[in-house]
Amino acid sequence: MSEFDLINQYFKSASVKRNDVVLGIGDDCALLSPPANKLLAVSTDTLISGVHFPENTLPADIGYKALAVNLSDLAAMGAEPAWVSLAVSLPETDHHWLEQFMRGFSELAQAQNIALIGGDTTRGKLSITVSVTGFINASAALKRSLAKPGDQIFVSGTLGDARAGLEILLNENSADNALDTKDLDYLVGRLNRPQARVETGQLLAAFTTESAEQNSIAAIDLSDGLLADLNHICKASGVGARLQLDSLPLSNALISYYDKQPDWQKILNAGDDYELCFTCAQEHVDQLLEKVSAKDVLLTHIGVINETDEIVCYQKDQLNEDIKQAGYNHFNNE
Amino acid sequence: MSEFDLINQYFKSASVKRNDVVLGIGDDCALLSPPANKLLAVSTDTLISGVHFPENTLPADIGYKALAVNLSDLAAMGAEPAWVSLAVSLPETDHHWLEQFMRGFSELAQAQNIALIGGDTTRGKLSITVSVTGFINASAALKRSLAKPGDQIFVSGTLGDARAGLEILLNENSADNALDTKDLDYLVGRLNRPQARVETGQLLAAFTTESAEQNSIAAIDLSDGLLADLNHICKASGVGARLQLDSLPLSNALISYYDKQPDWQKILNAGDDYELCFTCAQEHVDQLLEKVSAKDVLLTHIGVINETDEIVCYQKDQLNEDIKQAGYNHFNNE
Repeated sequence: MSEFDLINQYFKSASVKRNDVVLGIGDDCALLSPPANKLLAVSTDTLISGVHFPENTLPADIGYKALAVNLSDLAAMGAEPAWVSLAVSLPETDHHWLEQFMRGFSELAQAQNIALIGGDTTRGKLSITVSVTGFINASAALKRSLAKPGDQIFVSGTLGDARAGLEILLNENSADNALDTKDLDYLVGRLNRPQARVETGQLLAAFTTESAEQNSIAAIDLSDGLLADLNHICKASGVGARLQLDSLPLSNALISYYDKQPDWQKILNAGDDYELCFTCAQEHVDQLLEKVSAKDVLLTHIGVINETDEIVCYQKDQLNEDIKQAGYNHFNNE
Repeated sequence: MSEFDLINQYFKSASVKRNDVVLGIGDDCALLSPPANKLLAVSTDTLISGVHFPENTLPADIGYKALAVNLSDLAAMGAEPAWVSLAVSLPETDHHWLEQFMRGFSELAQAQNIALIGGDTTRGKLSITVSVTGFINASAALKRSLAKPGDQIFVSGTLGDARAGLEILLNENSADNALDTKDLDYLVGRLNRPQARVETGQLLAAFTTESAEQNSIAAIDLSDGLLADLNHICKASGVGARLQLDSLPLSNALISYYDKQPDWQKILNAGDDYELCFTCAQEHVDQLLEKVSAKDVLLTHIGVINETDEIVCYQKDQLNEDIKQAGYNHFNNE
């Protein structure tokens, strides 16, 4: 059996069985039966060792994260995940590495009932490209362009944890010496095992079509930092935003990490949160919080959409003029 | 405008408009409207610089080939191409390179009416991962498992050209000094700009459902060499094959290149042909050739499927015992 066959075995055995996968891995193409009357939501992301995860990251965490960051894009559209393709470049065939990688990948794929429909393995520097497909009703999609002045802005979960986790791994901050192990593990875990808010995204999408009138919700997942990502919503919708820094949700571990003085610049420009940021018209907020936040995910009101063309940040009633948007950019951020 | 925005501009402007693309590049996901009563055929391939193309290949050729090798997989299933996602890793932002790359990519995408629905650009060693989606009727798919003893074996186009083209580029064979420029260009062109047999694949698929009884056709595209790829059909179908070397279609340029003594080992194990190899029941051969080969693509009868479990090669009536299958394997073939 060739190395290729072996790898395909890993891939094939890792796949969840779904009725809409007519032909899985092993032919020239996968054959898939799409649902009637739904749109397909498709997203593709590449993770490169040393850029998107530290080089010493455990292979199981890399596998988990490679799928999670793609699921996060589906969540931000409100789609139900279904299928995934996986392309892996490896410097050498390392069965232990592949096994561990697939263990992390499959753990999440199984939890979300996603079938692995294609795989390609090539020799090269470690990088992973994942393409996910989900289903969504056309009228329910949480497009970035749907924000309107007066809409309230929310985020799921807590912000800035993954950035602190990265600093801990890279020993960039001496403060972590004071943290207890539980907090350290929590922050590093938020970096290595982001929780794609797939269920929350689907609940938001369902909510948009629940009332007589359509409740438009714009959403994005936070991969590059709240300021940069909210800016995508603002640009696509032709609006601005006012954020309330005091309201930003921070984990207890992060508060300990910053020794009670949050570094807003870092928190607002931190990549890898993979939380959802979304908008909701004022008159639907109560109903939304009742329907969506019952599901074990913290939702926090952090600001309001306005008619300007910029994002400003307030602490209490004071404008914070120091906060600047500096979204993560792979080519500028060396 | 950030580097990222610039690249997304290249991607967005490169895309063909299609009615089934409800939302294209620029949100968390693309939104696509699949056709009713068809299956989706999906294939993903990665090309790495120095592995899948020589490092000095022109960017326009890399762009063209990255799409062509994926279309070749759709062709081998008989599917009609529709959508493509593109993930590119680049060592640095090079606008000229990206522009040229997208020129080659778009030339083929436009010719085949394929919409670019997603793109991701990351910093890393040059590599390209493409994922294509096509449409096909469920009963028409040219699955590898459909070959039966007695079926005749065909290939499209000519074999071995791309391998010779690679040798010419790498100066591995002094014989090419004797070739005229036209032949050299032809052979190198076959390496850099493979012709995915998309139309032929669709004609074959249509042919399977044309008669009262189903005409089963097994097909594969030749990416790793005729022996290795035909072996995939044989394995999936539980059959063997007898090939007639004298029948293999060779271009005039290749015959000149080999100075009239074809190197069968090389031709049979050459990667990158991207021709189709397919089977057809004896009783349907005449009708098939009439319906399918009228379309400007050479189809050649090269052998027959049998009940053994191996592939043997004959020259005239003599078994050639030297020919061994040695399909291309990225991890073994350093």
